Amino acid sequence: MMNNSTPPVYNFSPGPAMIPQAVMLQAQAEFLNYRGLGVSVMEISHRSSEYLDIANQATQDVKDLLGVPDHYKVLFAQGGASLQFSMVPLNLAGRGRIFDYINTGVWSKKAIDEAGRFGTVNTVADASTSGFKQIPAQSCWQHSQNPAYLHFTPNETIQGLEFHDLPDMSVYASEVPLVADMSSTLFSRPIDVSQFGVIYAGAQKNIGPSGLTLIIVREDLLPYVVPEAPKLLRYETYVEYDSMFNTPPTFAWYMAGLVFRWLKTQGGVAAMAEVNRRKADALYQFIDAHDFYHNPISVEDRSWMNVPFSLVDDSLNGQFLQDAKAAGLLNLKGHRMVGGMRASLYNALPEEAVDRLIEFMKDFAQSNG
Amino acid sequence: MMNNSTPPVYNFSPGPAMIPQAVMLQAQAEFLNYRGLGVSVMEISHRSSEYLDIANQATQDVKDLLGVPDHYKVLFAQGGASLQFSMVPLNLAGRGRIFDYINTGVWSKKAIDEAGRFGTVNTVADASTSGFKQIPAQSCWQHSQNPAYLHFTPNETIQGLEFHDLPDMSVYASEVPLVADMSSTLFSRPIDVSQFGVIYAGAQKNIGPSGLTLIIVREDLLPYVVPEAPKLLRYETYVEYDSMFNTPPTFAWYMAGLVFRWLKTQGGVAAMAEVNRRKADALYQFIDAHDFYHNPISVEDRSWMNVPFSLVDDSLNGQFLQDAKAAGLLNLKGHRMVGGMRASLYNALPEEAVDRLIEFMKDFAQSNG
Repeated sequence: MMNNSTPPVYNFSPGPAMIPQAVMLQAQAEFLNYRGLGVSVMEISHRSSEYLDIANQATQDVKDLLGVPDHYKVLFAQGGASLQFSMVPLNLAGRGRIFDYINTGVWSKKAIDEAGRFGTVNTVADASTSGFKQIPAQSCWQHSQNPAYLHFTPNETIQGLEFHDLPDMSVYASEVPLVADMSSTLFSRPIDVSQFGVIYAGAQKNIGPSGLTLIIVREDLLPYVVPEAPKLLRYETYVEYDSMFNTPPTFAWYMAGLVFRWLKTQGGVAAMAEVNRRKADALYQFIDAHDFYHNPISVEDRSWMNVPFSLVDDSLNGQFLQDAKAAGLLNLKGHRMVGGMRASLYNALPEEAVDRLIEFMKDFAQSNG
Repeated sequence: MMNNSTPPVYNFSPGPAMIPQAVMLQAQAEFLNYRGLGVSVMEISHRSSEYLDIANQATQDVKDLLGVPDHYKVLFAQGGASLQFSMVPLNLAGRGRIFDYINTGVWSKKAIDEAGRFGTVNTVADASTSGFKQIPAQSCWQHSQNPAYLHFTPNETIQGLEFHDLPDMSVYASEVPLVADMSSTLFSRPIDVSQFGVIYAGAQKNIGPSGLTLIIVREDLLPYVVPEAPKLLRYETYVEYDSMFNTPPTFAWYMAGLVFRWLKTQGGVAAMAEVNRRKADALYQFIDAHDFYHNPISVEDRSWMNVPFSLVDDSLNGQFLQDAKAAGLLNLKGHRMVGGMRASLYNALPEEAVDRLIEFMKDFAQSNG
């Protein structure tokens, strides 16, 4: 977040990422004394009436923000998206042991590797053939006849590749649930939840602190969990106990709740989508217009949330990052697997941060071009 | 924690529990701006040098505080003790599918129920025969010939029953690893880690906020994980990736680190044990000396951390809790399975809190006896 000192800083961290400034200020103000209790929200029982109000409100706000239909359950868990890589197959393998996956980058691949522990993965489409620069056209996908589900990663945080349309599930002869790892895109734009079987997201991008996972699951899928699934890896456990079979990560859930309230004050996900589109468009347009910078992703598959870019002269990377930091533009280093730079433009990052970044990039190119 | 207003409040919550006041003040002070970074510690990458310093220091402090031998690994995970109920059998069933468990209360029983999913549980000793008022004498235990491990719960948070001596493992013909759920007792007193195969603890009692689990595992046990264990349920994953295969709960881990530093300033676990013994002794002595109050647990098995007590006249429970709250003595309600009252006396609860509680109980008995 931007602090109150001069000059302001802008945090482009890919995650754990920036949290809205208004949320951070409120959390700090009530850190020692939650609503007159005399103790912190992190020091009270998850079964207290005060905490249940927080949990219930957060759940309702997710439903409101995303328009979650009544036959879906909103769950809060631990373990991040990576634990969902195990939970998805364990909870759906009752439908069969063939799983369809789309590989579009590092996170898809991790999901694929883990699913292989519990069944046979069919890679429907593989963006590795393009060096993860393009999502393969659906006309070329090789789907199974009747898989337990189709899994995809709508936004690849590391590669900066995003689906702007949902897979067409009518290619399957019978109903196949669509499963999505939305860690770095959920709440960045409106979605039609009714198109999905399971949606999950680690919190540390657009939701709150790390250590919390949001799951939205269609009720009729709950019975497909396999017998060997551990208690805490079963969606039905979270449904039965309102995500409190055991002590939840109470502070992270509380912070997520504050973020959901903040999203509502901002006009919800439709309003966020407008801002996010403007932020991404501005940065991509600048990059494309300047030979000094380069983004490798096909224009139609570019992520709104994570913009990787490189300098024409790689030897300037260190200088770029150092100067950016001095200018208050933080955490722009690219992922170690990709190199170069990456600007993550999640909901909490204000539009002015992108303006400042572009201004800085212009100056840097002039000074070093 | 105690806030700065008048009168002070004392938080006897069983968990999520009180965090040391000094820790809460420091966390609040640097909540928006961690050490001049301009952003919060919860808004930076777990792979940043600043965060790695926090993680490494916390790990080292655990080793220092508990005297962890070199052939043990200190791991930080998510999912609480309840996820360990699955992870322990999944990680040790390579030694065999017979598991020995001691049942001393609610938490033992949950561990037993979950282990039964992965093998055959032999209940070595069962305190239910005494209504969970006494730990069965080891001379009466019925252990297996060669189980994969022996699991016990050194402190039962709900029943208020605590082991003050370790099980004698020499009853087994060959080496059997001792596994302990130390959620509500770790760091309350010195322990000899070398006597254990696996120690685990949910953080929300003596360590920090909920959503973090501390695990200490003997290195030679790592190869016994079964093939079907999910990636994030394998101790070897946490060892290989320094507990960062995926994004850890960074803020909770940071808070735990502050608590470990605080423990060191207090003189470590030996000093805490002195204070904890005094707190518990004072409260039990008061209860035993007053017919108005009652604690049902055998004197030699009473918990230092969780003191359940009842009023001779149950109909006064509501009045007791209401008056206690008005006097700044919070979260004394007993667990719904046990009823009555419970005072949790974790490390962070200052000695004066127990003095105040005793004073209040004396007054309440006089006014209502």
